[in-house]
Amino acid sequence: MVRARSEERRADILRATLEVIAERGYRGATLSAVAERVGLSQQGLLHYYPTKEALLVAVLEDRDRWDTGGGGSRGEGPWPLELLGSLVEYNAMRPAIVQTFSALLGESVTEEHPAREFFTRRYTQVRADMAASLRAEHGEELPGGMTPERAATLMVAVMDGLQYQWLLDPDAVDMPGAFRDFLRLLRGGREDLSGPAPE
Amino acid sequence: MVRARSEERRADILRATLEVIAERGYRGATLSAVAERVGLSQQGLLHYYPTKEALLVAVLEDRDRWDTGGGGSRGEGPWPLELLGSLVEYNAMRPAIVQTFSALLGESVTEEHPAREFFTRRYTQVRADMAASLRAEHGEELPGGMTPERAATLMVAVMDGLQYQWLLDPDAVDMPGAFRDFLRLLRGGREDLSGPAPE
Repeated sequence: MVRARSEERRADILRATLEVIAERGYRGATLSAVAERVGLSQQGLLHYYPTKEALLVAVLEDRDRWDTGGGGSRGEGPWPLELLGSLVEYNAMRPAIVQTFSALLGESVTEEHPAREFFTRRYTQVRADMAASLRAEHGEELPGGMTPERAATLMVAVMDGLQYQWLLDPDAVDMPGAFRDFLRLLRGGREDLSGPAPE
Repeated sequence: MVRARSEERRADILRATLEVIAERGYRGATLSAVAERVGLSQQGLLHYYPTKEALLVAVLEDRDRWDTGGGGSRGEGPWPLELLGSLVEYNAMRPAIVQTFSALLGESVTEEHPAREFFTRRYTQVRADMAASLRAEHGEELPGGMTPERAATLMVAVMDGLQYQWLLDPDAVDMPGAFRDFLRLLRGGREDLSGPAPE
């Protein structure tokens, strides 16, 4: 009973954090702004999330759970690539959460950053999920003899790299269009998935 | 004469900053560590670079100048794509400067960050340079009917995105190999550049 209430409170906090991020961006998402929104003292909030980084990592973990149904392991098998295209389109409508992800990813590569472990673990998982999606649609071999695992590394890089360019200059960069360009490259330049890949 | 001495001093500071970054990483590259290395008081250093961000942006501008001969505009025309592959290989041997670039890029997407303008300007330039390189080798049309401009956006995204995955998990990610995979995708999966692109 106590556990259930605590989990409910955590869900409230994450919801409030998302709202604050959407309104004020990554920098404005301070612990005190979140505490105020959810009706806790800052001390009370620290009981659940001891640092801003811990809170933001929890938000991103929660986003991953919603976006891909828990580390991409949907009951129905790997994500179709077309659905990933839709996810990028969806992301283009929520710059604040993409900004939070991108800023935290950037920080995480510095020494002893509290989000480093989360991102390292996440990318191992995401690359494996993407490889499964690629294998389901392309088989063992992609253009140039590339394995699904190697193509997965590229696909994740494209998604992340596009986010930075798009956040810096949204008018100059068509993020969803560029991601679909990349999916087309993986099909050897063809529009759709019919027929075998060219030699 | 005074100007020449001031420029020499700036060059000394940038060199010292690179050394400090290499030894202590992005977080360790504090203004006081750099001041000590170059034999200036912290006040003296602030005269040349008023903030840590300003100093690091100057280091990255300097790197761009060395790496690509000034915004990519080499006297000899656009960069051959193979040379870009070598640049990625070179980057894989200098994680500290890649870490500095990646951490600063991550921060730059937050509100009113001092490096935001530098990166926005830089990406406009880098996309144009990459498009020129792609046009020189592939002509007006890449696989799937993609223009050099659209392929340039992808290529820059791949380079940046790979850096994050590689910095987080260097044993799991072969950054130069992955970039060469991408160059091969742009050739429609072929190993080299001979012959026309497949329809």
